[in-house]
Amino acid sequence: MKIIGEKINGTRKRVKQAIEERDAKFIQDLAVSQAAAGADWLDANAGTAPQREADDLIWLVENIQAVTDKPICLDSANPAALETAIKVVKQTPMINSISAEPHRLKGVLPLVAQYKTPAIALAMDEKGIPKTKDDRLNVIRRLLGETRKLGVADNQLYFDPLAMTIATGQDNGLTFFDTIRAIRKEFPEVHITCGLSNISFGMPARAYINRVFLTLSMEAGLDSAICDPMDHEIKTTMLATELLLNQDKHCLKFTKAFRLGAFNKPQPVGTKA
Amino acid sequence: MKIIGEKINGTRKRVKQAIEERDAKFIQDLAVSQAAAGADWLDANAGTAPQREADDLIWLVENIQAVTDKPICLDSANPAALETAIKVVKQTPMINSISAEPHRLKGVLPLVAQYKTPAIALAMDEKGIPKTKDDRLNVIRRLLGETRKLGVADNQLYFDPLAMTIATGQDNGLTFFDTIRAIRKEFPEVHITCGLSNISFGMPARAYINRVFLTLSMEAGLDSAICDPMDHEIKTTMLATELLLNQDKHCLKFTKAFRLGAFNKPQPVGTKA
Repeated sequence: MKIIGEKINGTRKRVKQAIEERDAKFIQDLAVSQAAAGADWLDANAGTAPQREADDLIWLVENIQAVTDKPICLDSANPAALETAIKVVKQTPMINSISAEPHRLKGVLPLVAQYKTPAIALAMDEKGIPKTKDDRLNVIRRLLGETRKLGVADNQLYFDPLAMTIATGQDNGLTFFDTIRAIRKEFPEVHITCGLSNISFGMPARAYINRVFLTLSMEAGLDSAICDPMDHEIKTTMLATELLLNQDKHCLKFTKAFRLGAFNKPQPVGTKA
Repeated sequence: MKIIGEKINGTRKRVKQAIEERDAKFIQDLAVSQAAAGADWLDANAGTAPQREADDLIWLVENIQAVTDKPICLDSANPAALETAIKVVKQTPMINSISAEPHRLKGVLPLVAQYKTPAIALAMDEKGIPKTKDDRLNVIRRLLGETRKLGVADNQLYFDPLAMTIATGQDNGLTFFDTIRAIRKEFPEVHITCGLSNISFGMPARAYINRVFLTLSMEAGLDSAICDPMDHEIKTTMLATELLLNQDKHCLKFTKAFRLGAFNKPQPVGTKA
């Protein structure tokens, strides 16, 4: 499993404040602690202020790069901000995200093709998120038609099948897992990713739902997640799931994590945000 | 999911002592607290003293029946003790267990047939637990040949595919899940059950492994478990897994359990044993 650390996100109140106040230490702490906790990429989202997004994103990138060499996942729907940031990052970034929406196909996909970056690809189009597995798969087929036309390799793409909350449909979990399996079968080269909290929106005891959702998604074929790598429940569930799905050679990752204290709780939280 | 409460087991030190000292209150507390926590059956195992097993088992049964009307799962390999106890139980008991071992086929299976009881059926024979999915399935086919010959209905049987610890084989989890799927496919009427702790024998952080094992087993088709219904991790994982696998109509079981405090931690432990 690859982890995209989600914490540097300007739509979160405390991060937004740090960006506005140019609180470099706050951002750097989030970068260091996520990297130490095992993030493979660090998401950088500068928030939703269009007139300053490019400047804010570059400020985030520079501060993250000042303290870690983990690659950055540039999280924006703004092609100009993305292209400016791509030129500043030291390591090939991931781009978050493309979709079958026309403005992303026209604005963001060409950057993915030109700079040969990995990219998160959302299973949605201008009409929103399709309800059924088959309709989502149709969107994914169309999107792959476009990416292949521009020479983007399937394995550059991290498809997010987009979970809908179980609160509004008791089969939303199964639809999601079935969609993962269908993608895995039809497009074996692509990666599959998702956030872990949408599934429980509006429900009580969300952490319990989210961790089981992670296990069931991994069983179906998820090989990456956008999450908080410092979250004790998520981290330990991921380790145990890899172990039981025979994705942990000689159980070494699990036992090493145990020795390093990953299963101690409550886990000390490096940075509050 | 049906739960067979495992706590009244004479191979556990504190329960053994209670049996020897005829400490009725201790046993009754275990019965009441497991029933309140949602057990569908209460396992009763009198321990391993052959000359007194029948007496001890009847004493257990009488004390359990004094405080709850949950059906009992008579846990013994001793046909005489089982038959004596079957005559004392008020509700049809479950029998734990039959297998393809000759002494169980000859001694225990006829009781299951005669008294039309549900029974746990272990996927093993006189040579032990087969290593591969296919070999376990062969044992199960043979065992079903015998049960059908005696008129035992497939849906009386709770097959335990028998998990081996991940510590001695990193594919032991997958073998187990694959065996469940194969049983479900070939014998759709039978139930599937297992204990939740063998998988992690010899490993650190066992509770984390056991709870993920439960989720993955349920996804594969497990519909019953032999476990401690008061275990916070097991209980909450079971609820969340049923929710995400669309086994919880309108999310009612999950939300009701939440209201009743099932997700509060640390959960108060009714009885230590």
